[in-house]
Amino acid sequence: MTTQVLVSEIKKKQSFLCIGLDVDLTKIPAHLLELDDPIFEFNKAIINATHHLCVAYKPNIAFYEAYGLNGWKSLEKTITYLNTNYPEIFTIADAKRGDIGNTSAMYAKAFFEDLAFDSVTVAPYMGKDSIEPFLEFKDKHTIMLALTSNQGAFDFQTLTTDGQPLYQTVLETSKNWKNSANLMYVVGATKATCFSEIRHIVPDSFLLVPGVGAQGGSLAEVCKYGMNSQIGLLVNSSRGIIYASKGLDFASHASKKAQELQLEMADLMSGIL
Amino acid sequence: MTTQVLVSEIKKKQSFLCIGLDVDLTKIPAHLLELDDPIFEFNKAIINATHHLCVAYKPNIAFYEAYGLNGWKSLEKTITYLNTNYPEIFTIADAKRGDIGNTSAMYAKAFFEDLAFDSVTVAPYMGKDSIEPFLEFKDKHTIMLALTSNQGAFDFQTLTTDGQPLYQTVLETSKNWKNSANLMYVVGATKATCFSEIRHIVPDSFLLVPGVGAQGGSLAEVCKYGMNSQIGLLVNSSRGIIYASKGLDFASHASKKAQELQLEMADLMSGIL
Repeated sequence: MTTQVLVSEIKKKQSFLCIGLDVDLTKIPAHLLELDDPIFEFNKAIINATHHLCVAYKPNIAFYEAYGLNGWKSLEKTITYLNTNYPEIFTIADAKRGDIGNTSAMYAKAFFEDLAFDSVTVAPYMGKDSIEPFLEFKDKHTIMLALTSNQGAFDFQTLTTDGQPLYQTVLETSKNWKNSANLMYVVGATKATCFSEIRHIVPDSFLLVPGVGAQGGSLAEVCKYGMNSQIGLLVNSSRGIIYASKGLDFASHASKKAQELQLEMADLMSGIL
Repeated sequence: MTTQVLVSEIKKKQSFLCIGLDVDLTKIPAHLLELDDPIFEFNKAIINATHHLCVAYKPNIAFYEAYGLNGWKSLEKTITYLNTNYPEIFTIADAKRGDIGNTSAMYAKAFFEDLAFDSVTVAPYMGKDSIEPFLEFKDKHTIMLALTSNQGAFDFQTLTTDGQPLYQTVLETSKNWKNSANLMYVVGATKATCFSEIRHIVPDSFLLVPGVGAQGGSLAEVCKYGMNSQIGLLVNSSRGIIYASKGLDFASHASKKAQELQLEMADLMSGIL
């Protein structure tokens, strides 16, 4: 999917919501556990109930790998379901991969070709040649960690290098990589005040923003400092939406939670797109 | 597996060789492609021919994920084959994972419980709470990237923070994490002169060393600066061993290459263990 299509979807739906499909079998409604593939059935119900309120879905790959072969099957079925029924949705494999060049090329193949995701998240620690194999794919997007939403972000990402925090050096350096137009960045909602400095460095890039909801970040603050003329934000909520209820009507509760965020977003983007 | 068992295996085999099982279907012997599960058959043949010469195997997970469900099946069969037939072998899931706490816990479950690997590689960028969920597992080992073998290592890992390169800060900081005794570190053979400084910071830790062979690192240099009284090294070779031949006799060629390295290692560790 091109960035242009993503922006037009944001405009159409008046939403820049991404829903995280982090499916934990201990947290989903009990009646689903009797079905053949509870993870996929849960995802399908959530997607059917929320697709008109969001522009992206983000399965976190850890939650599928934790269930081995069955988990991988559920992931394949989920992305196929999305691509078949809702091709206008931007899909994110939240995988946080990164390795030496020939290995990153294999990960890129796994997520962009075999699973046909629109984007994948990657970690920057191994540098340029660990990311460029992902950037080679036309109309695919590589979402690199910059400043994450967790407490551990302060261990290394904010250390001073060359007179600025490491995450700013990561952002600046990556702008010079080949096909860097295919980069987006992860910036945690819990670090909202850093968004204005980040926008100085990458004014036009899309930012994937986790940390609203369960992790405590504020949507209004993120928009105040992070929004650009194309919106430029995909704000993710996982647990706050998908686990809104454990009852038979879990999907409609999820839809209600998603709608609350969508309405807040429509308000915050009013007059921009 | 405890570190003590690993050390006693190194002593018994006079080898600290790790063989990387990075199986690319375009590089394995053509006659295997006719079989039901070429990746597993290739691994089985390599393992049977080399297990007495090495102490560890390291499947790089990217190479399995690139083949989707079939790849994941081959990975499961490979680790089960190793654990069943060669329980004395130290197994490494080369996955370079790392995410917020609840997600890292899912990756730890995937690799330590479901797949029953002895260890997994992780990336440090997200800090303490992204790594500690892995460290909770008793007799399992978490191998964190410090200074990698690729050119991109110079993008961020060697930037100066607090008067020293970032990778040294990563090493020092991680020593204070809970259950840090379960940490090992990745240090590339291509940066051999950095090993003495690394040994000042982590004198007792095991180092997983890629980059000998195809990437150009020197085994003798690695040992000169990196070996400790328990050897403390697992030196990996992947392509140089497993792709030594594309013929029917590929396994015996692999064995020959592994033996060359084992003999060199026996010589280099002579008098130490």
